[in-house]
Amino acid sequence: MNSWEKNVRQVIPYTPGEQPVGTDIIKLNTNECPYPPAPGVKRAIKDIDTEMFRLYPDPEAKKLVDAIADYYNVSPEQIFVGVGSDDVIGMAFLTFFNSERPILFPDITYSFYDVWADLFQVKYETIPLNDKFEINPQDYFRKNGGVIFPNPNAPTAVSLPLSRVEEIIQQNQDVVVIVDEAYVDFGGESALPLVDKYDNLLVVRTFSKSRAMAGMRIGYAFGNEKLISAMKAVKFSYNSYTMNQAAICAGVAAIQDENYFQSIVSKIISTREQAKKRLEALGFRCTDSKANFLFASHRFVPAEKIFNELKSRQIYVRYFKKPRIDNYLRITIGTDKEMEALYEALEEIING
Amino acid sequence: MNSWEKNVRQVIPYTPGEQPVGTDIIKLNTNECPYPPAPGVKRAIKDIDTEMFRLYPDPEAKKLVDAIADYYNVSPEQIFVGVGSDDVIGMAFLTFFNSERPILFPDITYSFYDVWADLFQVKYETIPLNDKFEINPQDYFRKNGGVIFPNPNAPTAVSLPLSRVEEIIQQNQDVVVIVDEAYVDFGGESALPLVDKYDNLLVVRTFSKSRAMAGMRIGYAFGNEKLISAMKAVKFSYNSYTMNQAAICAGVAAIQDENYFQSIVSKIISTREQAKKRLEALGFRCTDSKANFLFASHRFVPAEKIFNELKSRQIYVRYFKKPRIDNYLRITIGTDKEMEALYEALEEIING
Repeated sequence: MNSWEKNVRQVIPYTPGEQPVGTDIIKLNTNECPYPPAPGVKRAIKDIDTEMFRLYPDPEAKKLVDAIADYYNVSPEQIFVGVGSDDVIGMAFLTFFNSERPILFPDITYSFYDVWADLFQVKYETIPLNDKFEINPQDYFRKNGGVIFPNPNAPTAVSLPLSRVEEIIQQNQDVVVIVDEAYVDFGGESALPLVDKYDNLLVVRTFSKSRAMAGMRIGYAFGNEKLISAMKAVKFSYNSYTMNQAAICAGVAAIQDENYFQSIVSKIISTREQAKKRLEALGFRCTDSKANFLFASHRFVPAEKIFNELKSRQIYVRYFKKPRIDNYLRITIGTDKEMEALYEALEEIING
Repeated sequence: MNSWEKNVRQVIPYTPGEQPVGTDIIKLNTNECPYPPAPGVKRAIKDIDTEMFRLYPDPEAKKLVDAIADYYNVSPEQIFVGVGSDDVIGMAFLTFFNSERPILFPDITYSFYDVWADLFQVKYETIPLNDKFEINPQDYFRKNGGVIFPNPNAPTAVSLPLSRVEEIIQQNQDVVVIVDEAYVDFGGESALPLVDKYDNLLVVRTFSKSRAMAGMRIGYAFGNEKLISAMKAVKFSYNSYTMNQAAICAGVAAIQDENYFQSIVSKIISTREQAKKRLEALGFRCTDSKANFLFASHRFVPAEKIFNELKSRQIYVRYFKKPRIDNYLRITIGTDKEMEALYEALEEIING
């Protein structure tokens, strides 16, 4: 070991889902949208003035912030934007989680939370979900350094009713509570209406799922102006210009097409409900998903075996070899055609 | 003050140069390139398959990394890419500067270094430049937690010969030394050839200046594989996908057009040398710039007055009200036409 290495920050990096390439594969492993972004995105990108790339982008990404503010009918000062919701949440950890007390999040949840906590040396405790994979608000009624949970939760797909989300916020007004709503558009209840009521609430969203723009890296958050302004101060102390010109312009176009948005979201929801029935008919049990994926466990066939067999057929789903969920598969909702191929493969694996 | 606010990270954010909008303004204040990016960038953006935006980008940005590796004839494992060199350097602070000893950088330098140090709670000491605004390597021969300096330095535009850069690296092999080469293409000597010799050297570059792509946010760094792999581990613990699809594709196109690159760089250098003569004829003293800007002080007229008078004429340059440099202007090299307008305005201000 060289001597400079002793001052290197030690981390166990997050392992994202595989990104296999090829035309024959069916990719149901990273909760991407099976449909392309709104048609306006294509036009916006084709029309972009690339000569302007020579100039720095607007550090405030005002056009994008204003478009989001218009759409949700909030003030631009209540909005923070970043390079995907990972950037937004990472920045929030750095900004708000500086207490001596541990932050709290569920034991089964987005696997980046403990990674950020380790990276920024934030203490944390995980709170077990109940046997139905539900969050019990009372478990969060205790002294802590902050709270974060996804709603709907991932990878369980289970949603917490807004009244119960509010109990958690209500009981934790001395710390920042982050509700990570990456999947909320697929049937969850958003905490956005509570932003004006609780100044310690941060609601995080993304363009990666329901807006079909994972490739352009746009995340955002709603919060009280004071909260947002604290995050901006930290962001501007790290990198003034994070949103590039293409992301700003594509983001604006994506949020302005309400009809398209509604059509792909309702299509994904209807495919999900159909998929749940088909999987149950094959012997799976699924949680009540309010997300763009199912969380499914087979009565007899081990999840890891199904995962590997699907992979050998070029169908990628997600398997987490972790306590309590190591017999579950997280299956992203694809197009109807992709799902038919999935059912066919599962039929072979299970009954074949 | 609400109780959650006591755990908010306290920062004094970096203030970037103004980003005025309008068609009549002349913008010589943020060291952007006056020429558009390589023509291939336009084609690459027009041809991008926006349907693919639904998928996450390649977390390794392999196409971009490979294009940079090919161009500089280094291995892809020696390259780190990020959202502008600010993201690259910020990540390097977080990764490498975790010693109890202070890091060292010049007293007059890029004004983000102390901001990052404060953000990540890294101790630092600033080392005064000499009266000619030069770095004296011997000043860095002492116990420290790391070293960072730009070469050429900003806002002074002064370059340090490679032999002297090597002395600093040579004498600091127990810490990481970062050479920030944002402006090196305009006449500086790069430390890139030393990357294979010293495993503690990180050389940082950007597409924002000589590649005319500030708007797309692409920075990169060269270093020993161990160094780069430590940075990647930290990066993947923060945000797996930072480079969006458009940035990756535009970046590849920009680096592949060597003729265009050489033509705009030599044009900027020749305008700079001309500008230096014209400013000296107007009574300015300039440092020997090896960057795409001049650092100039007038013999009689205070810099702040000139700055304000230029601004009232819609010509924006940069003025830092800081010790030792508060009688200097940092003037980005624009097109010849923009520079003529500048000379005319300066003539009026100084002799009028």
